[in-house]
Amino acid sequence: MLNSEQRNDVHPVDHHRGAGRPATALLNRKRITDAAMRLIRSKGPDGLTMAGLASALGVSAAALYNHADSKNMILRWVEDRLMQMIDVSAFGEIDWRSATIVWARNYWRVMRDNNQFVEAIAKTPIGGAPQTIAMYEAVAAGLLAGGWPLERIVPAIIAIESFIYGSAFDAQAPESLLDPGELSADAPVFSRAVGHYRSADYNVAAEHTFEDGLAALLTGLALSAGVRG
Amino acid sequence: MLNSEQRNDVHPVDHHRGAGRPATALLNRKRITDAAMRLIRSKGPDGLTMAGLASALGVSAAALYNHADSKNMILRWVEDRLMQMIDVSAFGEIDWRSATIVWARNYWRVMRDNNQFVEAIAKTPIGGAPQTIAMYEAVAAGLLAGGWPLERIVPAIIAIESFIYGSAFDAQAPESLLDPGELSADAPVFSRAVGHYRSADYNVAAEHTFEDGLAALLTGLALSAGVRG
Repeated sequence: MLNSEQRNDVHPVDHHRGAGRPATALLNRKRITDAAMRLIRSKGPDGLTMAGLASALGVSAAALYNHADSKNMILRWVEDRLMQMIDVSAFGEIDWRSATIVWARNYWRVMRDNNQFVEAIAKTPIGGAPQTIAMYEAVAAGLLAGGWPLERIVPAIIAIESFIYGSAFDAQAPESLLDPGELSADAPVFSRAVGHYRSADYNVAAEHTFEDGLAALLTGLALSAGVRG
Repeated sequence: MLNSEQRNDVHPVDHHRGAGRPATALLNRKRITDAAMRLIRSKGPDGLTMAGLASALGVSAAALYNHADSKNMILRWVEDRLMQMIDVSAFGEIDWRSATIVWARNYWRVMRDNNQFVEAIAKTPIGGAPQTIAMYEAVAAGLLAGGWPLERIVPAIIAIESFIYGSAFDAQAPESLLDPGELSADAPVFSRAVGHYRSADYNVAAEHTFEDGLAALLTGLALSAGVRG
């Protein structure tokens, strides 16, 4: 079955607007989502307003509301666009732990490269976002098949996602993040600990920190849920 | 020794501006930090600009630059303000695991209640932020005394903080966050798993999810580092 984004794209839109042709004919879910993502990238999550989006699209607010009834609907479209970039194909193919690591690493890379969207993704309800719901179904079914008790699946997913969101910020933090600088004499233990960290390539170090933390989190969650792996 | 914020506050400022008294006389680190936090709260992290901040303070940009040489400096002041709200007194008093839980719970509450600052805190270098550095020193010294190898301390702190940042967003997410709604037939396993979750009080559920995830993460990190607890 086609989802609503695909349905919108079945008939290619002529981007050369003819004389007298109303601007609203050019609006569809894809173009609105594109423009919303550009706005969030340039102005941050709070920079997305219906008025600002209509202006960026060169249409009236009324025209925009004909296609999207709220900012929340548009945020769900943005969420769905990003979530469908995350590969869940490993679930059902390999053991739950390896598949979860592949999924989480993919998810982290998408969030790292789309940092401006982390907060919106973390807070936008998934209802009405079919690609997002398909992702969660793949993860939940994979964990259930791997022996996870049903009631431990959602708390585990939330814990893993929370770790991914925070780690995505860390990957974009400057290398000097934890350098005490001229105050290092006031923090002797911490300064020595920092000296052991991120001495090699910075991006590789961030990825290792994410991978090691994820492995630790999965070990602890599985122990707590009484699951093997 | 007084830090720069304390030094600025030694002589109380007269807030009733006398005739002809220059506005810059009213600027100090505390007032600039207050105004920056108000701006970030109302407009998000990207809403903080030196020009906008000067305008909010009713001074010229040049006057503001006399006190703070960059937006990064002001973000460090904001970071220091928030980080000094986090209680680290348990380190050295009780075992490392219990003390880390007290610290992380405190940290999570501050971030949950100051969601607009999560991204800035996650990315702002700590150099020049004495309260922040004091916090990290207490944590690092507590972990070292608890038997943690020096080289595992910073990766563990980063993992815990990443989890805190993401969990702070989850605590502010709407209750409908993971409800598939009318698409639940497309996600049968996930829908059943969500049915087990957050049926009771929503805020309490978010706190439990954080606490359980934190416990799992600490267990996994300690196992990986070969530390007891």
